[in-house]
Amino acid sequence: MVGKFKRLLIGRPMKSAEIEGEKLTKLKALAVLSSDALSSVAYGTEQILIVLMAAGFAAVWYSIPISIAVLGLLLILIFSYRQTIFAYPTGGGAYIVAKDNLGVPVGLLAGGSLLVDYILTVAVSSSAGTDAITSAFPSLHDHRVLIALIMIVFLTIMNLRGVTEAASVLAVPVYLFVISIFVLIISGVIKYLSGGIHAAVPEMGTTVSNISLFLLLKAFSSGCSALTGVEAVSNAIPNFKKPAEKNAAKTLVMMGTILGAMFIGISLLAYWYGIVPNPKETVVSQIANATFGRGIIYYVIQGITALILFLAANTAYSAFPLLASMLAKDKFMPRMFMVRGDRLGFSNGIINLGILSALLVILFSGNTENLIPLYALGVFIPFTLSQLGMMMRWIKLKPSGWRTKLIINTIGMLTTLTISLIFVLTKFSHIWMVFIFLPIVIFIFYQTNRHYHNTAEQLRIDILKDKPIIKGNTIVVPIAGITQVVKQSIGYAKSVTDNVVAVYVGFTDEDIERMEKKWDEWNPGVRLIVLRSSYRSVIRPLLKFINTVEWKNSETDHITVLIPQFITKHWWQHILHNQTSLVLRTYLINQKNVIITTVPYHLKR
Amino acid sequence: MVGKFKRLLIGRPMKSAEIEGEKLTKLKALAVLSSDALSSVAYGTEQILIVLMAAGFAAVWYSIPISIAVLGLLLILIFSYRQTIFAYPTGGGAYIVAKDNLGVPVGLLAGGSLLVDYILTVAVSSSAGTDAITSAFPSLHDHRVLIALIMIVFLTIMNLRGVTEAASVLAVPVYLFVISIFVLIISGVIKYLSGGIHAAVPEMGTTVSNISLFLLLKAFSSGCSALTGVEAVSNAIPNFKKPAEKNAAKTLVMMGTILGAMFIGISLLAYWYGIVPNPKETVVSQIANATFGRGIIYYVIQGITALILFLAANTAYSAFPLLASMLAKDKFMPRMFMVRGDRLGFSNGIINLGILSALLVILFSGNTENLIPLYALGVFIPFTLSQLGMMMRWIKLKPSGWRTKLIINTIGMLTTLTISLIFVLTKFSHIWMVFIFLPIVIFIFYQTNRHYHNTAEQLRIDILKDKPIIKGNTIVVPIAGITQVVKQSIGYAKSVTDNVVAVYVGFTDEDIERMEKKWDEWNPGVRLIVLRSSYRSVIRPLLKFINTVEWKNSETDHITVLIPQFITKHWWQHILHNQTSLVLRTYLINQKNVIITTVPYHLKR
Repeated sequence: MVGKFKRLLIGRPMKSAEIEGEKLTKLKALAVLSSDALSSVAYGTEQILIVLMAAGFAAVWYSIPISIAVLGLLLILIFSYRQTIFAYPTGGGAYIVAKDNLGVPVGLLAGGSLLVDYILTVAVSSSAGTDAITSAFPSLHDHRVLIALIMIVFLTIMNLRGVTEAASVLAVPVYLFVISIFVLIISGVIKYLSGGIHAAVPEMGTTVSNISLFLLLKAFSSGCSALTGVEAVSNAIPNFKKPAEKNAAKTLVMMGTILGAMFIGISLLAYWYGIVPNPKETVVSQIANATFGRGIIYYVIQGITALILFLAANTAYSAFPLLASMLAKDKFMPRMFMVRGDRLGFSNGIINLGILSALLVILFSGNTENLIPLYALGVFIPFTLSQLGMMMRWIKLKPSGWRTKLIINTIGMLTTLTISLIFVLTKFSHIWMVFIFLPIVIFIFYQTNRHYHNTAEQLRIDILKDKPIIKGNTIVVPIAGITQVVKQSIGYAKSVTDNVVAVYVGFTDEDIERMEKKWDEWNPGVRLIVLRSSYRSVIRPLLKFINTVEWKNSETDHITVLIPQFITKHWWQHILHNQTSLVLRTYLINQKNVIITTVPYHLKR
Repeated sequence: MVGKFKRLLIGRPMKSAEIEGEKLTKLKALAVLSSDALSSVAYGTEQILIVLMAAGFAAVWYSIPISIAVLGLLLILIFSYRQTIFAYPTGGGAYIVAKDNLGVPVGLLAGGSLLVDYILTVAVSSSAGTDAITSAFPSLHDHRVLIALIMIVFLTIMNLRGVTEAASVLAVPVYLFVISIFVLIISGVIKYLSGGIHAAVPEMGTTVSNISLFLLLKAFSSGCSALTGVEAVSNAIPNFKKPAEKNAAKTLVMMGTILGAMFIGISLLAYWYGIVPNPKETVVSQIANATFGRGIIYYVIQGITALILFLAANTAYSAFPLLASMLAKDKFMPRMFMVRGDRLGFSNGIINLGILSALLVILFSGNTENLIPLYALGVFIPFTLSQLGMMMRWIKLKPSGWRTKLIINTIGMLTTLTISLIFVLTKFSHIWMVFIFLPIVIFIFYQTNRHYHNTAEQLRIDILKDKPIIKGNTIVVPIAGITQVVKQSIGYAKSVTDNVVAVYVGFTDEDIERMEKKWDEWNPGVRLIVLRSSYRSVIRPLLKFINTVEWKNSETDHITVLIPQFITKHWWQHILHNQTSLVLRTYLINQKNVIITTVPYHLKR
């Protein structure tokens, strides 16, 4: 039943050899990996304008140079990550690059902040998408957490079905979004050039009295939220069709070009139209409204914008499981993250991401405004570390043209570092938890790693000297009466060794006498030991007895406790039986060095 | 750790022989068993007045004859239950009496409705007590569910500690309540007789134009809510110190006398003072206010009234586990309800009652007005059935004086039946769920019973013919590499039989080749079978292989699957290992007839 339901939900299991068919073409990769980056267009310009408005309307013209600066940073990041893709064709996320060039601790810092960031991506994007929907349909406002959770469940299932099918479903809205934003920009530009817009806007270069470098930097760093998601491509190289690195690099450049064009287009229109940020209407919505009026095209653009924000969450579903599997491979995360599921995706990573982000959404009631700075910081820490790593790499390896490459990465590193510092300085009240949470994550990484190393060491064998040791056998069979189950268990025990003891725990003298008499009548050829329990516990006297046997015989014999257990036909019937055998087994396996044999007796009715 | 916490909460474990010390003296029994009945005084009179007010203030004088009628019914119930106590000295709740004289199905009907009723008792009493507190301290109103839950948790822990200690804690407020109500009544009577009260009240016998028999009956049935809890003593006879039945009978009469005196006293004062029910102030509160004014004595009376309502819930904590253990003994409920815990109480019954009533409180947000009619009906169904059972008993056994006894029980039965019918007629919208819920409970009783009978039949053994059968052994050892764990497992298997096969599941040809080569080098004297898995599942190929072995050897051999398992030092380390062995074990034990041996390997770090 459970199995069938699983099939229905995620499809038939796939052979390992089918993995090549699951690889991404350039166009599909663009859809799967770029929705996070592209969706940033929906809020990037707005973030800049919000900060600038603190200095008055006259300051909005700064949005253009700042947008160009963000574009420059985008260019640097694209160049930098292109270098990374070719340097690390098997996948060069910040974790790999930082670990490789700056050592394991720095790599874990990058990896840990990326993992946390992916969870935030899902939580923030699904909540923001829900905001877009509930803004359009205010009656749904009370159900916002539910809507966000439905989206997370939907994304989780799609991703469990496998990457390609997910891409097929997700490609359409991503392309629709790109098309609709370009239609908006082109129509807007035509309308502006044809003189259809009459807004009084401050001219470029207008002097603004109360503007400060700090404010400009803050606006710049806010605008950098448009760049979240750029790193997704370089993390996902192994998901590409061969030649993976070339395809990945081309996809990265395509994505960067589209993102840059859309971002600068929106920024320009916002400036030309003289748009002022408004908590009740997004900048994109204002532009669309001014260009087309509140007609069908307006609602289509708004709807697709909402959709793309949900899909941005999907990028994390590609990135998180892959990064988790890398950390697991390096023994910093539980091994289960390395296991590919029925549909070849890293199911455990997908499921864990779904659960953790759903928890975040519930905890913050889908109100994620406070999480956005955290989210941006979580991106810029690994950006910085990754580029620092690349700098080290060029200095160490010195390939041809390394000076140019070093300069590119140095500029990138300094910029992202500055932005990170600005985040810390200007938004400390929102991001302080990162300084508590990250050390905890890294501590867990190390604890996990230590455990795996310790285990491997303890399990290691000297293949020439360590051979299996043959010993005798003593079997203890706890019984509660004389039944078919006991007959079967005693039969098994006698088939293994002659050294079998049955043990009965009685609560009253009458119990014990009756049992002893019946045992003699039955006479199965096995000695019966009776124990008397004053505390109505079967477990404690049994444990004491097994201790004694162990103390006497463990030198020469394996001590086996044979536990008869009946298996009911329906699961709910389980609760109708005192789970003594289960409790006994749990005690023994955790606390004693005896072997436990379960003899099942399947009830037929 | 868990163990220590449990000790702190509920105390040291007690020997079975200590049970006599846990028995109740008459005075303690009065405290433990009567709080439910006595607390009804807090709302009984009020219920009558609320109904009468529908016919106008002139009708309030009917409260006196109705109260006397309720008193008459109380007398009948006391006589009736006294007869029951002596007829059933080992405990004569409605379940036992009905089952014994009217057959098992009727007994189960009585037992089922009592169980449900006990859960309602806890939910209603704790919520009503919370109401009393939050009326006094309105600032606590938002935390009412929490307060009710805290009370339930507190009562659960007290009862897990054991009956006597609970009695010691609970006796004080019960006696304080009795004393304070008597102080109130006596002071009130003195004040009235000394002419301190000047209220215009309708004289006895005033003609009321719009009064109907239906209304009077409804008022009478509402007043009968004062009688809930009277049955508690006859259910709990085995908890009394010897001679149990005499002590129980005396306790019952004591309780009836106190209850009757308090009830008629409050009703009389309410009439004399001309008190009108008021949703914002209880009748008791109005009487106390009129007698003492809003001084310290008033607040003490209100506080103790609130406390007694909480303690009423405690009655159910004695009754529910005992009834559940009786039903379990008759194989209608899971066996676990028969197990006495460390402190000799039926822990599972206590815990289940706590959980279920807490769920009710949460589900109804502590708003239990709608549950009160349900609660009263749940009491009067078993009242009726119990007395019907006693009638049958007298007719069948015909002991000396049986005619008088029969008449008493017949009157009682007819009265309680009428009240039940009035409940159904006048409050159907509140009690319909009882007609859905009760059949479900009884269905579960029968399903449980059938399962136990089927199991017993399948397990039964012919002691002369059914002897243990000795067979050969084939052992299958699934392995994932060559480690200390595998060495230990193979050693154990070879100690049992020469017929040992090791099985390895590989995902790639390289895996398999490497493993085969290493195995040859190690040469443990056991054949290695390698399986190739295309679906990355270890479990499925293993199951297939075990099927084959079973098919070939199960005639002559026991098939044992030996599962190496390492036990980590700390519980959290568990998640760091793929739980393959656990999954394999679960599959095998539920679906196949093979024996499963777990060889634990305890990691030391």
